[in-house]
Amino acid sequence: MFDLYVVTDKGLSKGRTDAETARLAYEGGADAVQLRMKNADGAEMLAQAREIAAIAAEMDRFFFVDDRVDVAIASGADGVHLGQSDIPVEVARELMGTDAIIGVSVQTVEQAIRAQENGADYLGVGSIFTTSTKPDAVQAIGLGPVFEIRQAVDIPVVAIGGINRGNIQDVIRAGADSAAVVSAVVAQDDPRAAAHELRDLILKVRPHVPVD
Amino acid sequence: MFDLYVVTDKGLSKGRTDAETARLAYEGGADAVQLRMKNADGAEMLAQAREIAAIAAEMDRFFFVDDRVDVAIASGADGVHLGQSDIPVEVARELMGTDAIIGVSVQTVEQAIRAQENGADYLGVGSIFTTSTKPDAVQAIGLGPVFEIRQAVDIPVVAIGGINRGNIQDVIRAGADSAAVVSAVVAQDDPRAAAHELRDLILKVRPHVPVD
Repeated sequence: MFDLYVVTDKGLSKGRTDAETARLAYEGGADAVQLRMKNADGAEMLAQAREIAAIAAEMDRFFFVDDRVDVAIASGADGVHLGQSDIPVEVARELMGTDAIIGVSVQTVEQAIRAQENGADYLGVGSIFTTSTKPDAVQAIGLGPVFEIRQAVDIPVVAIGGINRGNIQDVIRAGADSAAVVSAVVAQDDPRAAAHELRDLILKVRPHVPVD
Repeated sequence: MFDLYVVTDKGLSKGRTDAETARLAYEGGADAVQLRMKNADGAEMLAQAREIAAIAAEMDRFFFVDDRVDVAIASGADGVHLGQSDIPVEVARELMGTDAIIGVSVQTVEQAIRAQENGADYLGVGSIFTTSTKPDAVQAIGLGPVFEIRQAVDIPVVAIGGINRGNIQDVIRAGADSAAVVSAVVAQDDPRAAAHELRDLILKVRPHVPVD
C-alpha cells in the first residue's frame, strides 16, 4: 500500500510549516504523509490539513490526519490515523464512511487483530526503536512484533518509531510493508533528499511498483 | 434558550468524573452542560460525552461538546462549542448538519456579528470577569460588551468567565440571556445545590418559563 510514510512534527521542522515539510517529503518520493499536531488548535490544524490535502491531490499521494476525525473529513484527507487512546476505529468508520482509509497504532498481536476486526485499513506498529519524537510512546518493542503481527493480519503493516537510514532496511526485512519516519525526514536540512534516499533503501530490499 | 449553562472542568471537580458532575448540575436545574476536556484523548472524551449525552437525553436537557466536532457527532450531543481558534463554525455546520446547535466564543461585537453570519446558534461571551479556570482565556472584558453584543445580534448570548452567586444577577441585568459557570458549580462540594441556587438567582432577575 505504501512505501515511505512520513509523519510531521512541527517542532523538529527547522521553521518549516507542516505543509511545507509535506510537500518536500512527497517530492522526495514519500507516498503518504500523516499530519500530527498534538495539542494544536482545530483551526490551525485544519489550515495545515487543507494545504497538505491539496498538495496530495495534486501529486496523487496519500494524506492522513492524526487523531482528529473532524479535521480529516473537513480537509478532504484520505483518512485518519488513530492511536489506542483515540476515538475507536469503528466510530471513526461510522463518521467517515467506507471509502476513508483508517490506520491504527498497535503494539501487540492482540491489538493488531482487534484493529483489523474493527475495520482498520492498515496498522502502524511501534515504536520499533527508541525515539524522542513521540513523548507518549510506549517502550520500544523491537522488530519481533513486526514479524508476528505481519503473520497475524492481512492488512498492511507500517513500522514506526526511531527508523532512519541505518535501520530502515532491517525493518522491511523483518516483514513491514512500509516504514514511517519522523525526524529522519522532517528534521533534515533537505527533507526531499532524505525521503528520496529512504524510499530507495526500502525499494532495494522490497522491490515494488513505484507509485509515480 | 438557556437559563444556567455549566461547563465541566475535571481538575476542579473534587474527584468526580465530568459525567458525574454533569448529572448533578442537571439535577440542580442546569439546562445545558458543555463537556470541556482540554488535551484529553479522544477515547476518554468520547466515553464521557456518551455518558453525558445519555443523561441529557433522559432529563431532556442540552449537551454540548467543546471543540471536537467528531466527539460531538459520535456521542449524540446536541451540538458543539467552538472557540475562535477551533474549527470554523461554517465547517462544523457542514459536518454536523442543520439540526446541530453550534455555539461560538466571542469577545467583541465584530466577532459576534461574524459568528452569527457564519451560522452560530448562540454566543459565549467572555471572559466577563477574571477567572483561573480557562488559562488561555483573554483578559476579562467586563459587562460592557455583553450589552453591546446583545444589541448587535439576534441569537442568544451566554455570558461566561468568573461568574458566581455574587455577580450572576449583574450579568443577566447587563443583557445576557444566560450565564455559564465553571467553578461556581463543578468545584463545589454540592454541585446540585450550587446549580439550583444559581438558576434561582437568574430566574429572579429574568422571569422565564422553567425547562422542567
